[in-house]
Amino acid sequence: MRNLKLIISYDGTRYRGWQRLAGEPNTIQGKLESTLSRILEEPIEISGSGRTDAGAHAMRQVASFHCQNPMSCETLLQQLRTYLPEDIGVQSCQEAGLRFHARLNAVSKTYVYRVWNSEAPCVFERKYVYRMDASLDLNAMRQAASHFLGQHDFLSFCSNKKFKKSSVRTIHRLEIESVGPELRFTVEGDGFLYNMVRIIVGTLLEVGMGRKAPQEIPDILAAKNRELAGYTVPANGLILWEVAYQ
Amino acid sequence: MRNLKLIISYDGTRYRGWQRLAGEPNTIQGKLESTLSRILEEPIEISGSGRTDAGAHAMRQVASFHCQNPMSCETLLQQLRTYLPEDIGVQSCQEAGLRFHARLNAVSKTYVYRVWNSEAPCVFERKYVYRMDASLDLNAMRQAASHFLGQHDFLSFCSNKKFKKSSVRTIHRLEIESVGPELRFTVEGDGFLYNMVRIIVGTLLEVGMGRKAPQEIPDILAAKNRELAGYTVPANGLILWEVAYQ
Repeated sequence: MRNLKLIISYDGTRYRGWQRLAGEPNTIQGKLESTLSRILEEPIEISGSGRTDAGAHAMRQVASFHCQNPMSCETLLQQLRTYLPEDIGVQSCQEAGLRFHARLNAVSKTYVYRVWNSEAPCVFERKYVYRMDASLDLNAMRQAASHFLGQHDFLSFCSNKKFKKSSVRTIHRLEIESVGPELRFTVEGDGFLYNMVRIIVGTLLEVGMGRKAPQEIPDILAAKNRELAGYTVPANGLILWEVAYQ
Repeated sequence: MRNLKLIISYDGTRYRGWQRLAGEPNTIQGKLESTLSRILEEPIEISGSGRTDAGAHAMRQVASFHCQNPMSCETLLQQLRTYLPEDIGVQSCQEAGLRFHARLNAVSKTYVYRVWNSEAPCVFERKYVYRMDASLDLNAMRQAASHFLGQHDFLSFCSNKKFKKSSVRTIHRLEIESVGPELRFTVEGDGFLYNMVRIIVGTLLEVGMGRKAPQEIPDILAAKNRELAGYTVPANGLILWEVAYQ
């Protein structure tokens, strides 16, 4: 028995998200599992570091799986690159310790969210940015962003109303860079609730538009009420950037 | 009567090239003309600075057209951005002198050709690069590139066998930059024959692979024989970068 670790990039535009769904061939996990099972000639189930939403992307998603086939990592990598569609790219394939698990061992994740804040067209990267041309107060947004840092209960920033487990998470970094007409949000934390990054970005954009004040963020967090936070920005601007392990 | 000048970006992936074709709605020119005619409520014919191939792209293509409608440039720009598909973006719309003509007045054009020279996947920009992972001798390619500079008869670098007009052109600049795993060719000249940029790049890649020597270029030019030049690289790596006017 071996345990292998993959680092994968994908353009999520035409997929129903990461997670395998019964009867739905068009998921990233499903596509990887069926391709791996065919190449390795044994049924393969992979564990990703976490799910990504329908339409969201990944630069360096991590997945692990057990298999019996002794095929070298190099050959498997070549085969995967041959058989996977061009919107799923395997960056690397490595032997991992038998106890390594892509989700359970992840200690932090970084997401990037890209906003194209201009009336000008964004032809070439249109599938990877959320377009909105409202005028935004970047200072107010950065002030609001600072309130998210550290450990908080993020229930107000979770779309899943029936969430039963702990909704306490720690955000280590939340930066907003201005790159030409683009605003780029980088969020790093120990884990994220369902839609949490997209609701945080939507809330920061509402602050930027003057609909919310930066100092409201602590109250919104304290209220544990999804209704008080901002809107959920679209998935296509979201990219899982990287996953860190100990 | 007015004369308007448009600067246009497009992702050519799903189009049959720039030029309007009878019975083929899917060309950039055709899409622009039908959209302009609908907005301005009069039949519009546009002149581009030149044709681009099926599958090739443009960052700042220039087109001009005459019309009667007094609609302001600002309103027309907004309308175009509303009605054009998201893979065609109008960067600007300006009043031009009545005698301005996007093709006849162009004094030079710059094309960029992108080669993804790595086995690693290129997921997000896959539609804008030509992938080839052969090992390439960049010095030899740069040496070969220098032989193209200046005025030459480029008949050996033209796919159109029945070309009757002058095939003499001047290349002002031909640079090869190495950007991570990417090789980026920038070619600037006073005009280009059919497939000329793509055949020059294919020839330079053959030099890079050692199939041709840099010093063969002057002989290939002198022979005026397409058979002696290299292959035509695919259109999807080609982008019309900009057009200069006096």
